[in-house]
Amino acid sequence: MDTGDSTDEYFKSYEDLEVHRLMLEDKPRTLAYKNAIFACSDKFQNKIVMDVGAGTGILSVFCAKAGAAKVYAIEASHMAQVAKEVVRENGFESIIEVIHSKVEDLKSDDIGKVDIIVSEWMGFHLMHEGMLDSVLVARDQFLKENGLMFPNEAKLYASPCELPTVYDFWNDVYGVSMEFVSREQRRLKSKKPNISSLEANNLLTDGKLLVWLDLSTATMPELLCLGGESTVVPCNRNGIYQGICVWFSVTFPDGSELSTSPEYESTHWKQSIVVLPHDIPVTKDEPVAFKLELRKDSLKPRIYNVEYTQLDPENVEHDIPCHCYMTKCLVIKAYLSEHPEEDIQGRET
Amino acid sequence: MDTGDSTDEYFKSYEDLEVHRLMLEDKPRTLAYKNAIFACSDKFQNKIVMDVGAGTGILSVFCAKAGAAKVYAIEASHMAQVAKEVVRENGFESIIEVIHSKVEDLKSDDIGKVDIIVSEWMGFHLMHEGMLDSVLVARDQFLKENGLMFPNEAKLYASPCELPTVYDFWNDVYGVSMEFVSREQRRLKSKKPNISSLEANNLLTDGKLLVWLDLSTATMPELLCLGGESTVVPCNRNGIYQGICVWFSVTFPDGSELSTSPEYESTHWKQSIVVLPHDIPVTKDEPVAFKLELRKDSLKPRIYNVEYTQLDPENVEHDIPCHCYMTKCLVIKAYLSEHPEEDIQGRET
Repeated sequence: MDTGDSTDEYFKSYEDLEVHRLMLEDKPRTLAYKNAIFACSDKFQNKIVMDVGAGTGILSVFCAKAGAAKVYAIEASHMAQVAKEVVRENGFESIIEVIHSKVEDLKSDDIGKVDIIVSEWMGFHLMHEGMLDSVLVARDQFLKENGLMFPNEAKLYASPCELPTVYDFWNDVYGVSMEFVSREQRRLKSKKPNISSLEANNLLTDGKLLVWLDLSTATMPELLCLGGESTVVPCNRNGIYQGICVWFSVTFPDGSELSTSPEYESTHWKQSIVVLPHDIPVTKDEPVAFKLELRKDSLKPRIYNVEYTQLDPENVEHDIPCHCYMTKCLVIKAYLSEHPEEDIQGRET
Repeated sequence: MDTGDSTDEYFKSYEDLEVHRLMLEDKPRTLAYKNAIFACSDKFQNKIVMDVGAGTGILSVFCAKAGAAKVYAIEASHMAQVAKEVVRENGFESIIEVIHSKVEDLKSDDIGKVDIIVSEWMGFHLMHEGMLDSVLVARDQFLKENGLMFPNEAKLYASPCELPTVYDFWNDVYGVSMEFVSREQRRLKSKKPNISSLEANNLLTDGKLLVWLDLSTATMPELLCLGGESTVVPCNRNGIYQGICVWFSVTFPDGSELSTSPEYESTHWKQSIVVLPHDIPVTKDEPVAFKLELRKDSLKPRIYNVEYTQLDPENVEHDIPCHCYMTKCLVIKAYLSEHPEEDIQGRET
């Protein structure tokens, strides 16, 4: 019996609603998409768009407002009902079609080809609990040749860092010493990446690019294991090497970028910190070498495990030029400053 | 085999550790206990103390520092290992004895009688997920006649309030309207008390005392159902009645107080908000009548369910004097101001 008092339950719990509020309230995230879509409104005019993992449907509404002729808002979860309501409330029923389905279960006959795929698929440290797999399935199945990916590139960066305030608290808790708890905390934090916000001045080096994905061409097998190359970066100052700070950026077709670097306004992704088991004092220009690998879990494909390996900078190929204090790099730097016209890297390869 | 590399796991997970950090970092909470214990150091000199639910053991260390001859730190969870380590690190092994047990399972023969019981037992809205039951068991079993309870009183307050910013967000989400989500949010928030921090100026009335427990005499049956009396409070200003803000205070034997009122510095308990299903506009001096009852869950004794009933101020006994605009209260107020020597309340009873 319809009592007239509608009690449709769009959200399963208050926490469920809060997750979406958290994402929507993340201004750098939501505005990056809005601004990029509106900046490319010429590309959206009368085009067919697919929004993969539409959630509340906000990106679909942005696309419709930017001039899309048709938007397929694909949402696998119960959020599809919310997206439908948002579409109705904003008067876009004739343009946006919310489809409650996994994109993997859609048939080409249902939709045909699309001009643009929009998706906010990123998880912590880009891949963890993200849904890039589904976006690539959608691309291969539905995107026209030379269609646009929104975003179209993704990059993962890392930088050795200090972790201030994490351990100091326990040294003097209102006059009580709990130093062993800080050791416990470090042990527990070393087990998996910590999601927390650092300040730019906590970084010890420039960000090192670990992964660069072109989303128009990336393939599923490439996503099984990302990073993993031995890398070395010189410290910009004296400090204590306590962890690796990992962040990402995605780039849109207009060249604009959404970055989770500690240099930029904080997002709900914050940064991912790999905490080292022990402090390592470092000095300015000292090279720090490591390997960081993100590997898709064999049982849970949306889970990425992060493996950190500490390396000896002697055994790792340095950038050319590199401002570290090792003799080879000093010599190369001196040679290059005397012969600015030379391309030593080009000659070596 | 002891490898020499100790890997005792004091905390089960990082989240487990963070809970205790959150409580310790709650300055109003931890300093209220520290300051009250130190202010009463004459009462602690050479006394036997029991700390019920010792957690990290910090209160036990405060008691030992204040001069206690013996402290029994009773902790039922795996945190007992942490407390032992804290005691050792601070050199109080000879004074503080950590006992890994429920206080309910201790025998009088093990401990004998104690002079003081210290406990931080309070949960959200005082009772929810708290452990006052165990403190009363400890008191009845172990506290000497005329022994001290620390804290010795607890009070629960409530005040009708406004809930700014809770719903406004959804009206314009970067140009997209999601008003139905704010309706959803209200529906979900109405289901159980929300733990969140209000500002003092969100309150519409003075705080109304709902519950006053003397911890030296309170009994377990009294804790089954708290509050529940019909009550009325006049508004201090015009506004929108959107919820009831609930907070508590505990008082120590030196008269000092730990309060979670929005008038004071925020604690990890924040305030508990009962959200009304609909806005109710109110005006200055308008009486708001309600009943709020905290009832122990019949299956889970640490859970308290909160029941709110909206009442007609006509049918509820008002305070004397009451500054609401109802005729009876205006008359009484006028009479009292003409006859300041009269005790009208005394005469009526």
